[in-house]
Amino acid sequence: MYRSRPTGNLDSKALSYLSSMTEDSDLFYYDLLGSQAHVIMLYESDILSKKETIDILKGIDQLISNSASLNEYAESTAEDIHELIESAVIKMTTMNVGGKMHTARSRNDQVVLDIRMKLRDDLNRISSNLLGLINSLLSKARENIDTIMPMYTHLQQAQLGVLSHYLLSYCFSLLRNYERFSENYKRINVSPLGACAIGGSSMNIDRNKVASMLGFSGIVYNSVDATTSRDFLVEFSSNSLNTMLDLCRISEDFIIWSTSEFGFISLNDQFSSSSSAMPQKKNPDPLELIRGKTAMIEGNLVAISSIIKGLSSGYSRDLQEIKPLLWKTSSTLETSIEIMNGIVSTIFVDKDKMYAASAKSYAISLDIAEQLIMEGGISFRLSHKVIGTIVDYASRHGSIPLNLLTVSDIATSLKKIEFSHPILTPEKILTLIKLDTPENSIRFRKTKGSPNKNEQKIMIDHVEKVIFDYEKELELRSNKLHLGMDLLDKKIKHLINESS
Amino acid sequence: MYRSRPTGNLDSKALSYLSSMTEDSDLFYYDLLGSQAHVIMLYESDILSKKETIDILKGIDQLISNSASLNEYAESTAEDIHELIESAVIKMTTMNVGGKMHTARSRNDQVVLDIRMKLRDDLNRISSNLLGLINSLLSKARENIDTIMPMYTHLQQAQLGVLSHYLLSYCFSLLRNYERFSENYKRINVSPLGACAIGGSSMNIDRNKVASMLGFSGIVYNSVDATTSRDFLVEFSSNSLNTMLDLCRISEDFIIWSTSEFGFISLNDQFSSSSSAMPQKKNPDPLELIRGKTAMIEGNLVAISSIIKGLSSGYSRDLQEIKPLLWKTSSTLETSIEIMNGIVSTIFVDKDKMYAASAKSYAISLDIAEQLIMEGGISFRLSHKVIGTIVDYASRHGSIPLNLLTVSDIATSLKKIEFSHPILTPEKILTLIKLDTPENSIRFRKTKGSPNKNEQKIMIDHVEKVIFDYEKELELRSNKLHLGMDLLDKKIKHLINESS
Amino acid sequence: MYRSRPTGNLDSKALSYLSSMTEDSDLFYYDLLGSQAHVIMLYESDILSKKETIDILKGIDQLISNSASLNEYAESTAEDIHELIESAVIKMTTMNVGGKMHTARSRNDQVVLDIRMKLRDDLNRISSNLLGLINSLLSKARENIDTIMPMYTHLQQAQLGVLSHYLLSYCFSLLRNYERFSENYKRINVSPLGACAIGGSSMNIDRNKVASMLGFSGIVYNSVDATTSRDFLVEFSSNSLNTMLDLCRISEDFIIWSTSEFGFISLNDQFSSSSSAMPQKKNPDPLELIRGKTAMIEGNLVAISSIIKGLSSGYSRDLQEIKPLLWKTSSTLETSIEIMNGIVSTIFVDKDKMYAASAKSYAISLDIAEQLIMEGGISFRLSHKVIGTIVDYASRHGSIPLNLLTVSDIATSLKKIEFSHPILTPEKILTLIKLDTPENSIRFRKTKGSPNKNEQKIMIDHVEKVIFDYEKELELRSNKLHLGMDLLDKKIKHLINESS
Amino acid sequence: MYRSRPTGNLDSKALSYLSSMTEDSDLFYYDLLGSQAHVIMLYESDILSKKETIDILKGIDQLISNSASLNEYAESTAEDIHELIESAVIKMTTMNVGGKMHTARSRNDQVVLDIRMKLRDDLNRISSNLLGLINSLLSKARENIDTIMPMYTHLQQAQLGVLSHYLLSYCFSLLRNYERFSENYKRINVSPLGACAIGGSSMNIDRNKVASMLGFSGIVYNSVDATTSRDFLVEFSSNSLNTMLDLCRISEDFIIWSTSEFGFISLNDQFSSSSSAMPQKKNPDPLELIRGKTAMIEGNLVAISSIIKGLSSGYSRDLQEIKPLLWKTSSTLETSIEIMNGIVSTIFVDKDKMYAASAKSYAISLDIAEQLIMEGGISFRLSHKVIGTIVDYASRHGSIPLNLLTVSDIATSLKKIEFSHPILTPEKILTLIKLDTPENSIRFRKTKGSPNKNEQKIMIDHVEKVIFDYEKELELRSNKLHLGMDLLDKKIKHLINESS
Repeated sequence: MYRSRPTGNLDSKALSYLSSMTEDSDLFYYDLLGSQAHVIMLYESDILSKKETIDILKGIDQLISNSASLNEYAESTAEDIHELIESAVIKMTTMNVGGKMHTARSRNDQVVLDIRMKLRDDLNRISSNLLGLINSLLSKARENIDTIMPMYTHLQQAQLGVLSHYLLSYCFSLLRNYERFSENYKRINVSPLGACAIGGSSMNIDRNKVASMLGFSGIVYNSVDATTSRDFLVEFSSNSLNTMLDLCRISEDFIIWSTSEFGFISLNDQFSSSSSAMPQKKNPDPLELIRGKTAMIEGNLVAISSIIKGLSSGYSRDLQEIKPLLWKTSSTLETSIEIMNGIVSTIFVDKDKMYAASAKSYAISLDIAEQLIMEGGISFRLSHKVIGTIVDYASRHGSIPLNLLTVSDIATSLKKIEFSHPILTPEKILTLIKLDTPENSIRFRKTKGSPNKNEQKIMIDHVEKVIFDYEKELELRSNKLHLGMDLLDKKIKHLINESS
Repeated sequence: MYRSRPTGNLDSKALSYLSSMTEDSDLFYYDLLGSQAHVIMLYESDILSKKETIDILKGIDQLISNSASLNEYAESTAEDIHELIESAVIKMTTMNVGGKMHTARSRNDQVVLDIRMKLRDDLNRISSNLLGLINSLLSKARENIDTIMPMYTHLQQAQLGVLSHYLLSYCFSLLRNYERFSENYKRINVSPLGACAIGGSSMNIDRNKVASMLGFSGIVYNSVDATTSRDFLVEFSSNSLNTMLDLCRISEDFIIWSTSEFGFISLNDQFSSSSSAMPQKKNPDPLELIRGKTAMIEGNLVAISSIIKGLSSGYSRDLQEIKPLLWKTSSTLETSIEIMNGIVSTIFVDKDKMYAASAKSYAISLDIAEQLIMEGGISFRLSHKVIGTIVDYASRHGSIPLNLLTVSDIATSLKKIEFSHPILTPEKILTLIKLDTPENSIRFRKTKGSPNKNEQKIMIDHVEKVIFDYEKELELRSNKLHLGMDLLDKKIKHLINESS
Repeated sequence: MYRSRPTGNLDSKALSYLSSMTEDSDLFYYDLLGSQAHVIMLYESDILSKKETIDILKGIDQLISNSASLNEYAESTAEDIHELIESAVIKMTTMNVGGKMHTARSRNDQVVLDIRMKLRDDLNRISSNLLGLINSLLSKARENIDTIMPMYTHLQQAQLGVLSHYLLSYCFSLLRNYERFSENYKRINVSPLGACAIGGSSMNIDRNKVASMLGFSGIVYNSVDATTSRDFLVEFSSNSLNTMLDLCRISEDFIIWSTSEFGFISLNDQFSSSSSAMPQKKNPDPLELIRGKTAMIEGNLVAISSIIKGLSSGYSRDLQEIKPLLWKTSSTLETSIEIMNGIVSTIFVDKDKMYAASAKSYAISLDIAEQLIMEGGISFRLSHKVIGTIVDYASRHGSIPLNLLTVSDIATSLKKIEFSHPILTPEKILTLIKLDTPENSIRFRKTKGSPNKNEQKIMIDHVEKVIFDYEKELELRSNKLHLGMDLLDKKIKHLINESS
Repeated sequence: MYRSRPTGNLDSKALSYLSSMTEDSDLFYYDLLGSQAHVIMLYESDILSKKETIDILKGIDQLISNSASLNEYAESTAEDIHELIESAVIKMTTMNVGGKMHTARSRNDQVVLDIRMKLRDDLNRISSNLLGLINSLLSKARENIDTIMPMYTHLQQAQLGVLSHYLLSYCFSLLRNYERFSENYKRINVSPLGACAIGGSSMNIDRNKVASMLGFSGIVYNSVDATTSRDFLVEFSSNSLNTMLDLCRISEDFIIWSTSEFGFISLNDQFSSSSSAMPQKKNPDPLELIRGKTAMIEGNLVAISSIIKGLSSGYSRDLQEIKPLLWKTSSTLETSIEIMNGIVSTIFVDKDKMYAASAKSYAISLDIAEQLIMEGGISFRLSHKVIGTIVDYASRHGSIPLNLLTVSDIATSLKKIEFSHPILTPEKILTLIKLDTPENSIRFRKTKGSPNKNEQKIMIDHVEKVIFDYEKELELRSNKLHLGMDLLDKKIKHLINESS
């Protein structure tokens, strides 16, 4: 604690309440990186001598290569990682040298620098994982272009479709989240360092130089903005939530499909749990946890927003509470995507059960209604009514599958609504019904983006191409980031070697 | 209610519970537009005859020009706006004609079409308002480049600054939100129509044609994705929250600055409230409401996310609950930006009080500390300690302003921490302190993005340029949108005129 | 607007932004009641003359009996209902008389008085509805004591049970929410009036007298507390959420049970929706809306908490935003309970399908495992393993129902885990399996609170008794409330009649 | 993992994703207690032999006295603490003995037993801390009965008051939260054990016996309810939020009052932080953290509710995610109350500054307005206008304090609104203004619960008495809890000793 003014020490409980040490361990590495770049910039701006610079860099190097040594040097009263590191370097190099490390810098710009550095790494790993998951979904989609199954709205059978169609819908949604993260990255990857406490410094420092050594694409210009704003992480949290909502939807679909009543899929034993009491059970626990963790990430977004809401400009300590929430969000998202990837890759699809459910399903009704329109020229509403009545009849007489109805069944139904039509006779209607096998239902569906086989192929090709482009983009982004870091590394090595 | 199967009517309470009529009034206009484009596409795809098309279009026209006529024709049991409009058109044109309007369409793709159409209009108005507010902030910034005031961290005076610096920080943050909305727009401005219930249609429709008549840039390809996904509006809600958090920060700053204790600004009477009981009061009510409404928009984001969380693929009625929340969010955001614009434009700045507070503030300390470093070559930590001790002395002796300290005051302070230095004598330190007038404090601060006058000008020029670019972009976007609509309009007019 | 100090009028947009008129319409009636009591107290405290009192009371009476007259008298610039009413009374009675109505009162204590009065009425109706729903669940439970069905954990069949058992579990949970509301009521039913703006008045008023005329059980003593605190409505919102979470769970169970794959129940046509496009469908829309509205009520709780978070003591205008959220919560909860009552009362239970699913379910396994323990004295873990292996065998050989296994099937299974036991021979195990019919499964389950028939009866009797007690309590509470109101009424009538 | 059916092991990443081991460490002790009681009940119900019982109890004893030994015995593939403990006991005692420990029990009833046991302990500590904080507030209130200060609404000076009045308002609000927790306790302190997986057991167990050995007041009767319901912890989370909102309000007041602009209070150095860059600063960090943590606890409530929302009846793994959130909430609340207690106890009150601000404040206006009413019999509205005009005049002429106005100032003001009155002459009004010193303002304010000295005493006495009653209640509750535990302890000791 740099208590230049308040006398006496902090109450020990207050210290522990104030301390962000646990949450900050995630930032240890980034804080050291940031300090290296800051110190080199101070040297190149003639604020530190070469000797001082080398001493401090050696100290930092020791902490990087042996983080255990931190405990040896650090003050136990440090409130946070920034103070801890600085105090360790001071012990290693004397106050006259190490005490210069924090020149033209404040915890206020330093902490948000660290957050931005960690967050962009997290974001890049998440983006990469996302593409991995989409790839797995795509593989499964390729295998299931012909896997006919009922499609559901309101959890009721609505139309017939194919499994690949569902899997592709997940891909499209996840790709949009990939995009959001890429746009978010631009707003994260700018350096706040040099904003100092809130209003900059009178020292002659070079903000852009530090930024480029740390791989940033630029600086957060206005110093109030640089130290106050956390909008980039609200955005990240919201993108994380949007992505988890995708995973949650997949989970919900899979959980329902893997009940014994549906029986469409089953999870690999590697991704399901047994019961402590019920020997017969196989539970979809990882999927349930993804759902639960979605709620947690929603809660984190609320907490983060509520922390920010009502703060005035300038750093306030409330913001410290954001860090653990943010890291929890990013690590949970990262592993959730991985787990979902594992589940998708190993899932067993029971094509027979899916087909059986389709064959006896009334979800064929809309197809038939459209046949009646095309064959008989009647209006959609009338056609809707005709088929509705027939289905009602079938379901009230022991749930007869539509293709097992007789001409007389249909005639009876039509009489009820006084429907008679020159072309659409009961016989003709029955013929149309029988024509609508599950296979034909899919084949006849021709609109863009429908379950039709050709459409499946178009979508698979499209997603494949987009993944390819995004992988390129991600690599490029990562290369740029390392370019800056390499420069920093080279400078450090050069200085340290020179001294030995 | 198109109850082709369920017999009997809905329970009246259930109907009122199910009904989305109130929320849907916002969608009335968009639903009519969508229906026009759908019907013309059906005609051009040879699904409707010219006569049928004209009859339906005339019916829709009547509803547009005289929405009161809706009540004349509509069924009182309609659950939603889509049903209401269709049933009115049927009454106007007979079932044989109007009953064809819903061919190859479902409420599931229709409702999300309407939402996307309204949302892009809302978003464009919000974006325009945002640029308006930033412009007003910029004007006020120009007037206050030299308005010296204390800057705060932890709500404690930290450094000196200028008012324009704060105002510009708001601009930068709001511009990022403008960007987010623009990115969001791309994901909103695609048409879901033709996805039907969930799995497309066997009718030969042209999804792209409808899309372009409605000004969309393309279609949501996969039909499951098109009817299920609501990620674009979670994103919109989150962008709205991020923007409200900016307004909320401005409000918090202004509320505090307008207390009688700070006294830095006062709201124009047009934007403040009187008290029903206390005659002397002038309350910053609109700012407080902005804060309160920020919380409401946060709550709406939670509600929307929680609705989506746990839903399986395919439309579920839960989604209906999103609509009123979304419209409340967009209209609140729109008016809140307007109100803030009014407040900013008319605010009174008490430059004298700001200067007085600055002149007696210890917030000058960091500047002095940096002077000691530059003059005496001591480390930042030592300098921090020296000034800390002097300030402590001053504050314990009746809060003496630093520039009224005597050499002996300083000598006494230094003795306490046993500081002696060849250059930094008490006399020298006092000279440096006296040099640090508020004006010099700002002048010496040279880092990029600091309160320095030159930096203020750079930032003002930058923001000005960005606003200009964004206004162009917004106009272009709006033009594209109308291009599609104009085509639609022309086709309608052509068909209707032909018939008369 | 009582603009004694701010000059000029509010900006018209600002007025509309500030205005709470729409939200306040709910409070109109309560504000009039509160004003009546306040005025009579002022009269009885010798602050108003009898003549003045009567004039004001007559004015209020006119507004009550003919709320349309409000528009005639009210100022269009009124920001809220309190101002509107006062200004109307002033117009009716002259400033010299009506201008005295607000003596020793402020909007700050008045608004929270109105909220408390409306909220306790809402709460009482909700409590009554809750008991109604529990009664309906109980009736259905009585009819389904013997309705055997699978019970689910992780949405997988776990054990066998009976439908009444589920229905009773809902009753218990809802009863706890009834209790919470009753406890909440105590904290709502106290009067804040007389706290004035924040610090009371120098006029000689009698706070307790007003409170008792309005049926309150006492006053919120401390005037800061009375005007600032909103904890009672956070509590109400949380209780509402807890109750909606119950309804949401019931909805989720019912939605799943009414899929065609489960087929256990079906909703009455009065409470299900048809599809606009798919003629065969019958959707559980009211249940889905209950789920969606649960999210909305969660969002409202967040909004309300976030509004309060960060406010300092004393009334702030942010609090205005709470009102519409709160009324939305209470009215939604009230109708949701009613709708659920309708659904439960009319639901169709397919006992045959439930039994069929039970008969072929492996959910019998735990029962068998316990039989093995009791018959063979082996440990639970071993028994768990034995049955697990047999089930695994059965499911891998075409999902053989356990009671159709042969001795040799069992012998083969046991060999795999090298299990041999003097008593638990394959033959013996098969006997035990066959003994475990669904009926016996329920009969053997004897623990308190299990699906056993006797336990169902005990629980039904218990719930019945508790409902009876709570109905009594609710009536008593309501009577007390009206006692105060009756006194108020009598005093008003007495004064007005006297004058005529 | 008790994988009796799924073959193969869990994927290692999946295991780590599934594992609740970290969160469960909090439950370790409670799980052992619960197991002891369960095992003794099994013995007393003739399900375990005495020898088996003793062996298992000894095993558990070893784990309690030496938790390190857990690692020695436990399986590394355990998913949770329940499995870990059982597997350790099995290793200690053989499968034949330890394998019986889980008879008639499931993780589903076990985990919620553990949660209830830990939660009631947490709740009791929180309740005790709450009374401690209220006591400290009361002490400070006693010291500040005469400390005159402005009271604020909308953060604007509204009326004059005394510091104790604010402090007492905190007490009243916190006491309501104490009450809520006490009511919550009744719903927590009931045992779910014996509900097993979801539907009870066919073994002859005694649920009430286990409950009473663990200090519970009864059982959660219905087995579905017992394993599914989490409403008690939603309630706990909401009560925690309500309490944090109190602490947050106190924090907000204190943060504002401790700015240099207000200067009313200052935090003890033990509870304030220094700045890393600005030597003069003393930041109210613990108060800011309380605000931040309030948001976190709000987020946890959202996460918990959203987890529950949409789950069907019966245990789902989603619920696992609740545990870490809940423990974070309870521990944060506990320490936040403690920290606030420390802050309140050591805070420095600058009575002089408070008085100075009061003396020159226009917050006296309402008092004067009421004097005019009482002296001149004019209406409140007119009086409001008269004083409003005078204040407006004063503030426009260099913010003249009201008691320094001259007769001619007042006459000029009155002329503006054409006010003339036989009694209320400018001279008379000035006399009344001068009469209204800060001291008289407080003295004249007589309403119940106002800042009047007598009222302060009444409130202090009241709070004192309530604290006394609640301390008693808390002690009684704690004694009851230990009574059960002591019985359990005695039985264990008796059995183990018997065997040696």
